[in-house]
Amino acid sequence: MRTLKLTIEYDGTDLVGWQRQTEGVSVQGLLEDALAAFEGAPVTVHGAGRTDAGAHALGQVASVTLRAVHAVEAIHRGLNVALPPAVRVLAIEEAPAGFHARFSAVSKTYEYRIVNAPFVSAFLHRYVWHVPGRLSVEAMREGASSLAGRHDFAAFQGAGTPVHNTVRTILGIEWHEGAGCDRPHVLRVEGDGFLRYMVRTIAGTLVEIGLGRWPPGRMAEVLASRDRAQAGPTAPASGLFLVRVAY
Amino acid sequence: MRTLKLTIEYDGTDLVGWQRQTEGVSVQGLLEDALAAFEGAPVTVHGAGRTDAGAHALGQVASVTLRAVHAVEAIHRGLNVALPPAVRVLAIEEAPAGFHARFSAVSKTYEYRIVNAPFVSAFLHRYVWHVPGRLSVEAMREGASSLAGRHDFAAFQGAGTPVHNTVRTILGIEWHEGAGCDRPHVLRVEGDGFLRYMVRTIAGTLVEIGLGRWPPGRMAEVLASRDRAQAGPTAPASGLFLVRVAY
Repeated sequence: MRTLKLTIEYDGTDLVGWQRQTEGVSVQGLLEDALAAFEGAPVTVHGAGRTDAGAHALGQVASVTLRAVHAVEAIHRGLNVALPPAVRVLAIEEAPAGFHARFSAVSKTYEYRIVNAPFVSAFLHRYVWHVPGRLSVEAMREGASSLAGRHDFAAFQGAGTPVHNTVRTILGIEWHEGAGCDRPHVLRVEGDGFLRYMVRTIAGTLVEIGLGRWPPGRMAEVLASRDRAQAGPTAPASGLFLVRVAY
Repeated sequence: MRTLKLTIEYDGTDLVGWQRQTEGVSVQGLLEDALAAFEGAPVTVHGAGRTDAGAHALGQVASVTLRAVHAVEAIHRGLNVALPPAVRVLAIEEAPAGFHARFSAVSKTYEYRIVNAPFVSAFLHRYVWHVPGRLSVEAMREGASSLAGRHDFAAFQGAGTPVHNTVRTILGIEWHEGAGCDRPHVLRVEGDGFLRYMVRTIAGTLVEIGLGRWPPGRMAEVLASRDRAQAGPTAPASGLFLVRVAY
Protein backbone atom coordinates (compact mmCIF):
# COMPACT_ATOMS: atom_id res chain seq x y z
CA MET A 1 0.00 0.00 0.00
CA ARG A 2 1.20 3.48 -0.80
CA THR A 3 -0.25 6.93 -0.29
CA LEU A 4 -0.23 9.53 -3.08
CA LYS A 5 -0.57 13.29 -2.79
CA LEU A 6 -2.30 14.91 -5.78
CA THR A 7 -2.31 18.64 -6.50
CA ILE A 8 -5.32 19.58 -8.61
CA GLU A 9 -6.81 22.60 -10.31
CA TYR A 10 -10.35 22.91 -11.61
CA ASP A 11 -12.81 25.27 -13.20
CA GLY A 12 -15.78 24.49 -10.97
CA THR A 13 -18.40 26.30 -13.08
CA ASP A 14 -20.09 23.12 -14.29
CA LEU A 15 -19.30 20.94 -11.25
CA VAL A 16 -21.32 20.22 -8.11
CA GLY A 17 -18.22 20.89 -6.00
CA TRP A 18 -15.51 18.73 -4.48
CA GLN A 19 -17.71 16.20 -2.76
CA ARG A 20 -19.38 13.28 -4.52
CA GLN A 21 -23.15 13.79 -4.72
CA THR A 22 -25.97 11.55 -5.83
CA GLU A 23 -26.44 13.81 -8.87
CA GLY A 24 -24.02 15.86 -10.93
CA VAL A 25 -20.30 15.78 -11.58
CA SER A 26 -17.97 16.23 -8.57
CA VAL A 27 -14.19 16.45 -8.48
CA GLN A 28 -14.01 13.66 -5.90
CA GLY A 29 -16.22 11.43 -8.06
CA LEU A 30 -14.17 12.11 -11.17
CA LEU A 31 -10.89 11.33 -9.38
CA GLU A 32 -12.23 8.22 -7.67
CA ASP A 33 -13.63 6.86 -10.92
CA ALA A 34 -10.41 7.58 -12.82
CA LEU A 35 -8.15 6.11 -10.09
CA ALA A 36 -10.32 2.98 -9.80
CA ALA A 37 -9.10 2.07 -13.29
CA PHE A 38 -5.51 1.84 -11.97
CA GLU A 39 -6.55 0.10 -8.77
CA GLY A 40 -8.97 -2.34 -10.36
CA ALA A 41 -11.23 -1.70 -7.37
CA PRO A 42 -13.10 1.22 -5.84
CA VAL A 43 -10.93 3.84 -4.10
CA THR A 44 -11.62 6.71 -1.74
CA VAL A 45 -10.03 10.10 -2.38
CA HIS A 46 -9.81 12.67 0.41
CA GLY A 47 -9.67 16.38 -0.42
CA ALA A 48 -8.11 19.12 1.68
CA GLY A 49 -11.05 21.47 1.15
CA ARG A 50 -14.62 20.54 0.27
CA THR A 51 -15.12 23.34 -2.22
CA ASP A 52 -18.69 24.41 -3.02
CA ALA A 53 -20.60 23.86 -6.27
CA GLY A 54 -19.31 26.43 -8.77
CA ALA A 55 -16.16 27.25 -6.78
CA HIS A 56 -12.71 26.73 -8.29
CA ALA A 57 -9.29 25.47 -7.26
CA LEU A 58 -5.77 26.36 -8.32
CA GLY A 59 -4.13 24.13 -5.72
CA GLN A 60 -6.57 21.65 -4.18
CA VAL A 61 -4.75 18.71 -2.59
CA ALA A 62 -6.10 15.17 -2.45
CA SER A 63 -4.78 11.97 -0.91
CA VAL A 64 -5.44 8.39 -1.89
CA THR A 65 -4.08 5.03 -0.76
CA LEU A 66 -3.52 2.48 -3.50
CA ARG A 67 -2.23 -1.04 -3.98
CA ALA A 68 -1.48 -0.25 -7.64
CA VAL A 69 2.27 -0.15 -8.34
CA HIS A 70 2.22 2.06 -11.45
CA ALA A 71 4.80 4.85 -11.63
CA VAL A 72 3.41 8.21 -10.53
CA GLU A 73 4.17 9.60 -14.00
CA ALA A 74 1.93 6.96 -15.58
CA ILE A 75 -0.88 7.67 -13.11
CA HIS A 76 -0.46 11.42 -13.69
CA ARG A 77 -0.68 11.05 -17.46
CA GLY A 78 -3.54 8.57 -17.26
CA LEU A 79 -5.61 10.75 -14.96
CA ASN A 80 -5.29 13.80 -17.20
CA VAL A 81 -6.41 11.71 -20.17
CA ALA A 82 -9.40 10.33 -18.23
CA LEU A 83 -10.51 13.58 -16.59
CA PRO A 84 -12.47 16.31 -18.39
CA PRO A 85 -10.30 19.29 -19.43
CA ALA A 86 -11.83 21.49 -16.69
CA VAL A 87 -10.09 19.30 -14.07
CA ARG A 88 -6.30 18.89 -14.24
CA VAL A 89 -3.92 17.03 -11.99
CA LEU A 90 -0.94 19.40 -11.72
CA ALA A 91 1.34 17.04 -9.79
CA ILE A 92 1.42 13.66 -8.06
CA GLU A 93 3.98 12.61 -5.49
CA GLU A 94 4.44 9.73 -3.06
CA ALA A 95 3.43 10.81 0.45
CA PRO A 96 4.44 9.39 3.82
CA ALA A 97 2.17 6.66 5.18
CA GLY A 98 -0.64 8.28 7.14
CA PHE A 99 -0.68 11.43 5.02
CA HIS A 100 -4.25 12.72 4.78
CA ALA A 101 -5.02 15.70 2.56
CA ARG A 102 -7.48 17.15 5.05
CA PHE A 103 -6.19 16.17 8.48
CA SER A 104 -2.49 16.70 7.70
CA ALA A 105 -3.08 20.23 6.37
CA VAL A 106 -1.53 23.05 8.39
CA SER A 107 -3.22 25.88 6.53
CA LYS A 108 -5.34 26.65 3.49
CA THR A 109 -5.40 29.77 1.38
CA TYR A 110 -8.50 30.93 -0.46
CA GLU A 111 -8.99 33.84 -2.82
CA TYR A 112 -12.24 35.64 -3.46
CA ARG A 113 -12.30 37.68 -6.69
CA ILE A 114 -14.59 40.62 -7.41
CA VAL A 115 -14.84 42.69 -10.57
CA ASN A 116 -15.79 46.23 -9.58
CA ALA A 117 -16.70 47.82 -12.90
CA PRO A 118 -19.86 48.45 -14.94
CA PHE A 119 -19.44 45.06 -16.68
CA VAL A 120 -17.23 41.97 -16.52
CA SER A 121 -14.83 40.77 -19.21
CA ALA A 122 -16.24 37.97 -21.37
CA PHE A 123 -13.28 35.85 -20.24
CA LEU A 124 -13.79 36.37 -16.49
CA HIS A 125 -17.52 36.09 -15.83
CA ARG A 126 -17.17 32.44 -14.74
CA TYR A 127 -14.46 33.34 -12.22
CA VAL A 128 -15.63 36.41 -10.33
CA TRP A 129 -18.46 38.11 -8.52
CA HIS A 130 -19.64 41.19 -10.39
CA VAL A 131 -20.24 44.12 -8.06
CA PRO A 132 -21.05 47.18 -10.18
CA GLY A 133 -21.38 49.70 -7.30
CA ARG A 134 -18.19 51.56 -6.37
CA LEU A 135 -16.22 49.63 -3.70
CA SER A 136 -13.79 51.22 -1.26
CA VAL A 137 -10.87 48.80 -0.99
CA GLU A 138 -9.58 50.91 1.91
CA ALA A 139 -12.78 50.31 3.91
CA MET A 140 -12.76 46.59 3.03
CA ARG A 141 -9.14 46.36 4.18
CA GLU A 142 -10.00 48.00 7.47
CA GLY A 143 -12.97 45.66 7.94
CA ALA A 144 -10.90 42.58 7.07
CA SER A 145 -8.16 43.45 9.55
CA SER A 146 -10.38 42.67 12.53
CA LEU A 147 -10.61 39.02 11.43
CA ALA A 148 -6.91 38.25 11.70
CA GLY A 149 -6.01 35.92 14.57
CA ARG A 150 -7.85 33.29 16.59
CA HIS A 151 -11.61 33.88 16.87
CA ASP A 152 -14.96 32.16 17.04
CA PHE A 153 -16.23 32.51 13.46
CA ALA A 154 -19.78 31.23 14.13
CA ALA A 155 -21.21 34.41 12.58
CA PHE A 156 -19.69 33.42 9.24
CA GLN A 157 -20.82 29.79 9.17
CA GLY A 158 -23.51 28.87 6.64
CA ALA A 159 -26.94 28.52 8.24
CA GLY A 160 -28.12 24.96 8.73
CA THR A 161 -24.64 23.44 8.64
CA PRO A 162 -23.55 23.53 12.28
CA VAL A 163 -20.07 22.54 13.39
CA HIS A 164 -19.55 22.46 17.17
CA ASN A 165 -16.14 24.02 17.32
CA THR A 166 -16.31 27.23 15.32
CA VAL A 167 -12.98 28.62 16.51
CA ARG A 168 -10.45 29.10 13.70
CA THR A 169 -7.24 31.06 13.24
CA ILE A 170 -6.83 33.43 10.32
CA LEU A 171 -3.11 33.63 9.64
CA GLY A 172 -3.34 36.31 6.97
CA ILE A 173 -6.05 38.33 5.26
CA GLU A 174 -5.42 40.95 2.62
CA TRP A 175 -6.98 42.72 -0.34
CA HIS A 176 -5.16 43.15 -3.65
CA GLU A 177 -6.72 46.01 -5.55
CA GLY A 178 -7.82 45.49 -9.14
CA ALA A 179 -9.22 47.83 -11.78
CA GLY A 180 -11.69 47.68 -14.64
CA CYS A 181 -13.60 44.82 -16.21
CA ASP A 182 -10.68 42.39 -16.39
CA ARG A 183 -8.63 42.89 -13.21
CA PRO A 184 -10.55 41.75 -10.12
CA HIS A 185 -10.06 42.90 -6.56
CA VAL A 186 -8.73 39.83 -4.76
CA LEU A 187 -9.35 38.97 -1.11
CA ARG A 188 -6.68 36.47 -0.02
CA VAL A 189 -7.24 34.61 3.26
CA GLU A 190 -4.99 32.04 4.88
CA GLY A 191 -6.32 30.08 7.84
CA ASP A 192 -5.82 26.88 9.78
CA GLY A 193 -9.33 25.86 8.78
CA PHE A 194 -12.56 27.28 7.40
CA LEU A 195 -16.22 26.75 8.23
CA ARG A 196 -18.75 26.09 5.50
CA TYR A 197 -19.37 29.26 3.42
CA MET A 198 -16.98 31.16 5.71
CA VAL A 199 -14.90 32.85 2.99
CA ARG A 200 -17.99 33.66 0.92
CA THR A 201 -19.78 35.15 3.95
CA ILE A 202 -16.70 37.18 4.86
CA ALA A 203 -16.56 38.45 1.26
CA GLY A 204 -20.28 39.26 1.27
CA THR A 205 -19.95 41.18 4.54
CA LEU A 206 -16.88 43.09 3.36
CA VAL A 207 -18.71 44.12 0.19
CA GLU A 208 -21.46 45.68 2.32
CA ILE A 209 -18.68 47.67 3.98
CA GLY A 210 -16.99 48.45 0.66
CA LEU A 211 -20.26 49.83 -0.70
CA GLY A 212 -20.53 52.09 2.35
CA ARG A 213 -23.70 50.46 3.69
CA TRP A 214 -21.90 49.50 6.90
CA PRO A 215 -18.89 51.12 8.60
CA PRO A 216 -15.65 49.07 8.72
CA GLY A 217 -16.06 48.71 12.50
CA ARG A 218 -19.17 46.63 11.90
CA MET A 219 -16.93 43.64 11.02
CA ALA A 220 -15.67 43.31 14.61
CA GLU A 221 -19.26 43.55 15.89
CA VAL A 222 -20.46 40.82 13.52
CA LEU A 223 -17.56 38.60 14.61
CA ALA A 224 -18.30 39.19 18.30
CA SER A 225 -22.02 38.48 17.82
CA ARG A 226 -21.39 34.86 16.70
CA ASP A 227 -24.74 35.31 14.93
CA ARG A 228 -25.01 34.51 11.20
CA ALA A 229 -27.93 36.91 10.92
CA GLN A 230 -25.57 39.82 11.67
CA ALA A 231 -23.25 39.09 8.74
CA GLY A 232 -23.76 40.09 5.11
CA PRO A 233 -25.00 37.84 2.28
CA THR A 234 -23.07 34.78 1.12
CA ALA A 235 -21.09 35.90 -1.94
CA PRO A 236 -21.53 33.72 -5.08
CA ALA A 237 -19.37 30.60 -5.46
CA SER A 238 -18.06 31.75 -8.87
CA GLY A 239 -15.58 34.15 -7.21
CA LEU A 240 -14.05 31.58 -4.84
CA PHE A 241 -10.72 29.82 -5.45
CA LEU A 242 -8.87 27.37 -3.18
CA VAL A 243 -5.34 28.44 -4.10
CA ARG A 244 -2.98 26.59 -1.78
CA VAL A 245 -2.82 23.99 0.98
CA ALA A 246 0.23 23.93 3.24
CA TYR A 247 1.48 20.83 5.10
CA MET B 1 -28.83 58.85 -39.07
CA ARG B 2 -25.63 58.28 -37.15
CA THR B 3 -22.89 55.69 -37.33
CA LEU B 4 -21.58 53.99 -34.21
CA LYS B 5 -18.28 52.17 -33.72
CA LEU B 6 -18.45 49.29 -31.23
CA THR B 7 -15.42 47.55 -29.73
CA ILE B 8 -16.31 44.03 -28.63
CA GLU B 9 -14.73 41.07 -26.90
CA TYR B 10 -16.08 37.54 -26.87
CA ASP B 11 -15.36 34.03 -25.72
CA GLY B 12 -16.26 32.25 -28.94
CA THR B 13 -16.25 28.71 -27.51
CA ASP B 14 -20.02 28.29 -27.74
CA LEU B 15 -20.62 30.59 -30.72
CA VAL B 16 -20.83 29.81 -34.45
CA GLY B 17 -18.50 32.75 -35.13
CA TRP B 18 -18.98 36.38 -36.09
CA GLN B 19 -21.32 35.89 -39.00
CA ARG B 20 -25.05 35.24 -38.66
CA GLN B 21 -25.90 31.65 -39.64
CA THR B 22 -29.19 29.86 -40.13
CA GLU B 23 -28.42 27.81 -36.99
CA GLY B 24 -26.53 28.62 -33.81
CA VAL B 25 -25.60 31.78 -31.95
CA SER B 26 -23.41 34.32 -33.79
CA VAL B 27 -21.94 37.57 -32.53
CA GLN B 28 -23.44 39.49 -35.44
CA GLY B 29 -26.86 37.98 -34.76
CA LEU B 30 -26.69 38.79 -31.05
CA LEU B 31 -25.67 42.41 -31.73
CA GLU B 32 -28.25 42.93 -34.46
CA ASP B 33 -31.03 41.52 -32.30
CA ALA B 34 -30.01 43.62 -29.30
CA LEU B 35 -29.60 46.82 -31.34
CA ALA B 36 -32.96 46.31 -33.06
CA ALA B 37 -34.58 46.98 -29.67
CA PHE B 38 -33.13 50.51 -29.68
CA GLU B 39 -33.90 51.07 -33.36
CA GLY B 40 -37.38 49.61 -33.30
CA ALA B 41 -36.53 48.02 -36.65
CA PRO B 42 -34.05 45.50 -38.03
CA VAL B 43 -30.45 46.71 -38.27
CA THR B 44 -27.32 45.45 -40.00
CA VAL B 45 -24.05 45.29 -38.08
CA HIS B 46 -20.75 45.03 -39.96
CA GLY B 47 -17.74 43.41 -38.30
CA ALA B 48 -14.08 44.12 -39.05
CA GLY B 49 -13.16 40.44 -39.05
CA ARG B 50 -15.45 37.49 -39.70
CA THR B 51 -14.02 35.31 -36.96
CA ASP B 52 -14.54 31.54 -37.21
CA ALA B 53 -16.78 29.36 -35.03
CA GLY B 54 -14.96 28.85 -31.72
CA ALA B 55 -12.50 31.72 -32.26
CA HIS B 56 -12.35 34.62 -29.82
CA ALA B 57 -11.99 38.41 -29.87
CA LEU B 58 -10.41 40.87 -27.49
CA GLY B 59 -10.94 43.84 -29.80
CA GLN B 60 -13.36 43.09 -32.61
CA VAL B 61 -14.82 46.27 -34.11
CA ALA B 62 -18.32 46.60 -35.50
CA SER B 63 -20.18 49.45 -37.18
CA VAL B 64 -23.87 50.16 -37.36
CA THR B 65 -26.00 53.00 -38.67
CA LEU B 66 -29.01 53.94 -36.56
CA ARG B 67 -31.84 56.43 -36.50
CA ALA B 68 -32.17 55.92 -32.72
CA VAL B 69 -31.07 59.01 -30.78
CA HIS B 70 -30.22 57.32 -27.44
CA ALA B 71 -26.99 58.41 -25.76
CA VAL B 72 -24.10 56.03 -26.48
CA GLU B 73 -23.83 55.32 -22.72
CA ALA B 74 -27.44 54.08 -22.67
CA ILE B 75 -26.89 51.89 -25.72
CA HIS B 76 -23.65 50.55 -24.20
CA ARG B 77 -25.33 49.65 -20.93
CA GLY B 78 -28.41 48.22 -22.64
CA LEU B 79 -26.37 46.01 -24.97
CA ASN B 80 -24.36 44.50 -22.12
CA VAL B 81 -27.58 43.72 -20.28
CA ALA B 82 -29.12 42.11 -23.38
CA LEU B 83 -26.06 40.15 -24.53
CA PRO B 84 -24.93 36.88 -22.93
CA PRO B 85 -21.94 37.31 -20.55
CA ALA B 86 -19.58 35.68 -23.07
CA VAL B 87 -20.02 38.71 -25.36
CA ARG B 88 -19.19 42.16 -24.01
CA VAL B 89 -19.26 45.56 -25.65
CA LEU B 90 -16.11 47.25 -24.33
CA ALA B 91 -16.77 50.67 -25.83
CA ILE B 92 -19.11 52.55 -28.14
CA GLU B 93 -18.32 55.83 -29.84
CA GLU B 94 -19.85 58.00 -32.55
CA ALA B 95 -18.04 57.46 -35.85
CA PRO B 96 -17.78 59.72 -38.89
CA ALA B 97 -20.47 59.15 -41.53
CA GLY B 98 -19.28 56.48 -43.92
CA PHE B 99 -17.26 54.63 -41.30
CA HIS B 100 -17.38 50.90 -42.01
CA ALA B 101 -15.78 48.46 -39.57
CA ARG B 102 -14.44 46.28 -42.36
CA PHE B 103 -13.70 48.61 -45.26
CA SER B 104 -12.29 51.45 -43.14
CA ALA B 105 -9.84 49.16 -41.33
CA VAL B 106 -6.15 49.81 -41.99
CA SER B 107 -4.85 46.71 -40.24
CA LYS B 108 -5.93 43.84 -38.03
CA THR B 109 -3.94 42.00 -35.40
CA TYR B 110 -4.57 38.36 -34.53
CA GLU B 111 -2.98 36.18 -31.89
CA TYR B 112 -2.69 32.43 -32.03
CA ARG B 113 -2.04 30.78 -28.64
CA ILE B 114 -0.45 27.36 -28.10
CA VAL B 115 0.20 25.57 -24.84
CA ASN B 116 3.34 23.48 -25.25
CA ALA B 117 3.29 21.26 -22.17
CA PRO B 118 2.09 17.75 -21.26
CA PHE B 119 -1.33 19.14 -20.31
CA VAL B 120 -3.27 22.42 -20.40
CA SER B 121 -4.47 24.42 -17.40
CA ALA B 122 -8.13 23.85 -16.55
CA PHE B 123 -8.63 27.59 -17.06
CA LEU B 124 -7.05 27.78 -20.53
CA HIS B 125 -8.30 24.78 -22.48
CA ARG B 126 -11.02 26.84 -24.18
CA TYR B 127 -8.48 29.42 -25.34
CA VAL B 128 -5.50 27.55 -26.76
CA TRP B 129 -4.31 24.76 -29.00
CA HIS B 130 -2.64 22.02 -26.99
CA VAL B 131 0.55 20.80 -28.66
CA PRO B 132 2.25 18.32 -26.29
CA GLY B 133 5.35 17.64 -28.43
CA ARG B 134 8.35 19.89 -27.78
CA LEU B 135 8.22 23.02 -29.96
CA SER B 136 11.26 25.05 -31.00
CA VAL B 137 10.19 28.68 -30.79
CA GLU B 138 13.46 29.60 -32.50
CA ALA B 139 12.57 27.49 -35.55
CA MET B 140 9.02 28.87 -35.60
CA ARG B 141 10.40 32.43 -35.46
CA GLU B 142 12.68 31.71 -38.37
CA GLY B 143 9.81 30.19 -40.35
CA ALA B 144 7.49 33.10 -39.56
CA SER B 145 10.00 35.71 -40.67
CA SER B 146 9.62 34.76 -44.33
CA LEU B 147 5.96 35.83 -44.25
CA ALA B 148 6.58 39.47 -43.38
CA GLY B 149 5.82 41.89 -46.20
CA ARG B 150 3.60 41.82 -49.29
CA HIS B 151 2.97 38.35 -50.71
CA ASP B 152 0.43 36.17 -52.42
CA PHE B 153 -0.91 34.08 -49.51
CA ALA B 154 -2.99 31.66 -51.64
CA ALA B 155 -1.19 28.71 -50.00
CA PHE B 156 -2.71 29.71 -46.64
CA GLN B 157 -6.30 30.22 -47.80
CA GLY B 158 -8.86 27.65 -46.65
CA ALA B 159 -9.77 25.18 -49.39
CA GLY B 160 -13.13 25.74 -51.06
CA THR B 161 -13.34 29.42 -50.10
CA PRO B 162 -11.64 31.16 -53.02
CA VAL B 163 -10.98 34.89 -53.05
CA HIS B 164 -9.58 36.25 -56.32
CA ASN B 165 -7.01 38.63 -54.92
CA THR B 166 -4.94 36.65 -52.43
CA VAL B 167 -2.21 39.28 -52.05
CA ARG B 168 -1.93 40.64 -48.50
CA THR B 169 0.69 42.54 -46.53
CA ILE B 170 1.92 41.25 -43.19
CA LEU B 171 3.06 44.28 -41.25
CA GLY B 172 4.42 42.35 -38.29
CA ILE B 173 4.72 38.72 -37.21
CA GLU B 174 6.33 37.58 -33.98
CA TRP B 175 6.34 34.79 -31.42
CA HIS B 176 6.17 35.46 -27.68
CA GLU B 177 7.52 32.45 -25.84
CA GLY B 178 5.45 30.88 -23.07
CA ALA B 179 6.14 28.08 -20.60
CA GLY B 180 4.21 25.31 -18.89
CA CYS B 181 0.51 24.49 -18.79
CA ASP B 182 -0.72 28.03 -18.16
CA ARG B 183 1.50 30.34 -20.25
CA PRO B 184 0.93 29.84 -23.98
CA HIS B 185 3.34 30.59 -26.79
CA VAL B 186 1.69 33.46 -28.67
CA LEU B 187 1.99 34.11 -32.41
CA ARG B 188 1.05 37.73 -33.04
CA VAL B 189 0.36 38.78 -36.64
CA GLU B 190 -0.61 42.20 -37.92
CA GLY B 191 -1.73 42.53 -41.52
CA ASP B 192 -3.70 44.76 -43.85
CA GLY B 193 -6.11 41.87 -44.38
CA PHE B 194 -6.39 38.12 -43.93
CA LEU B 195 -7.77 35.32 -46.06
CA ARG B 196 -10.13 32.75 -44.59
CA TYR B 197 -8.26 30.40 -42.20
CA MET B 198 -5.02 32.22 -43.02
CA VAL B 199 -3.78 32.72 -39.44
CA ARG B 200 -4.81 29.19 -38.44
CA THR B 201 -3.05 27.69 -41.47
CA ILE B 202 0.08 29.75 -40.79
CA ALA B 203 -0.02 28.52 -37.16
CA GLY B 204 -0.53 24.92 -38.26
CA THR B 205 2.40 25.15 -40.69
CA LEU B 206 4.68 26.79 -38.13
CA VAL B 207 3.91 24.03 -35.63
CA GLU B 208 5.10 21.44 -38.18
CA ILE B 209 8.35 23.44 -38.28
CA GLY B 210 8.43 23.85 -34.49
CA LEU B 211 8.11 20.08 -34.04
CA GLY B 212 11.06 19.59 -36.41
CA ARG B 213 9.06 17.79 -39.09
CA TRP B 214 9.89 20.51 -41.60
CA PRO B 215 12.89 22.86 -41.75
CA PRO B 216 12.19 26.59 -41.22
CA GLY B 217 13.05 27.23 -44.89
CA ARG B 218 9.98 25.24 -45.89
CA MET B 219 7.80 28.24 -45.00
CA ALA B 220 9.17 30.31 -47.90
CA GLU B 221 8.63 27.36 -50.25
CA VAL B 222 5.01 26.91 -49.13
CA LEU B 223 4.40 30.63 -49.64
CA ALA B 224 5.94 30.58 -53.11
CA SER B 225 3.93 27.51 -54.13
CA ARG B 226 0.57 29.31 -53.70
CA ASP B 227 -0.75 25.78 -53.16
CA ARG B 228 -2.83 25.04 -50.04
CA ALA B 229 -1.77 21.39 -50.22
CA GLN B 230 1.82 22.41 -49.44
CA ALA B 231 0.93 24.08 -46.12
CA GLY B 232 0.37 22.38 -42.78
CA PRO B 233 -2.97 21.59 -41.14
CA THR B 234 -5.43 24.30 -40.11
CA ALA B 235 -4.86 24.87 -36.39
CA PRO B 236 -7.99 24.69 -34.19
CA ALA B 237 -10.17 27.80 -33.81
CA SER B 238 -9.90 27.70 -29.98
CA GLY B 239 -6.39 29.25 -30.10
CA LEU B 240 -7.34 32.21 -32.31
CA PHE B 241 -8.00 35.73 -31.01
CA LEU B 242 -8.77 38.90 -33.00
CA VAL B 243 -6.99 41.34 -30.71
CA ARG B 244 -7.04 44.73 -32.43
CA VAL B 245 -8.30 46.58 -35.47
CA ALA B 246 -6.59 49.80 -36.49
CA TYR B 247 -8.24 52.63 -38.47
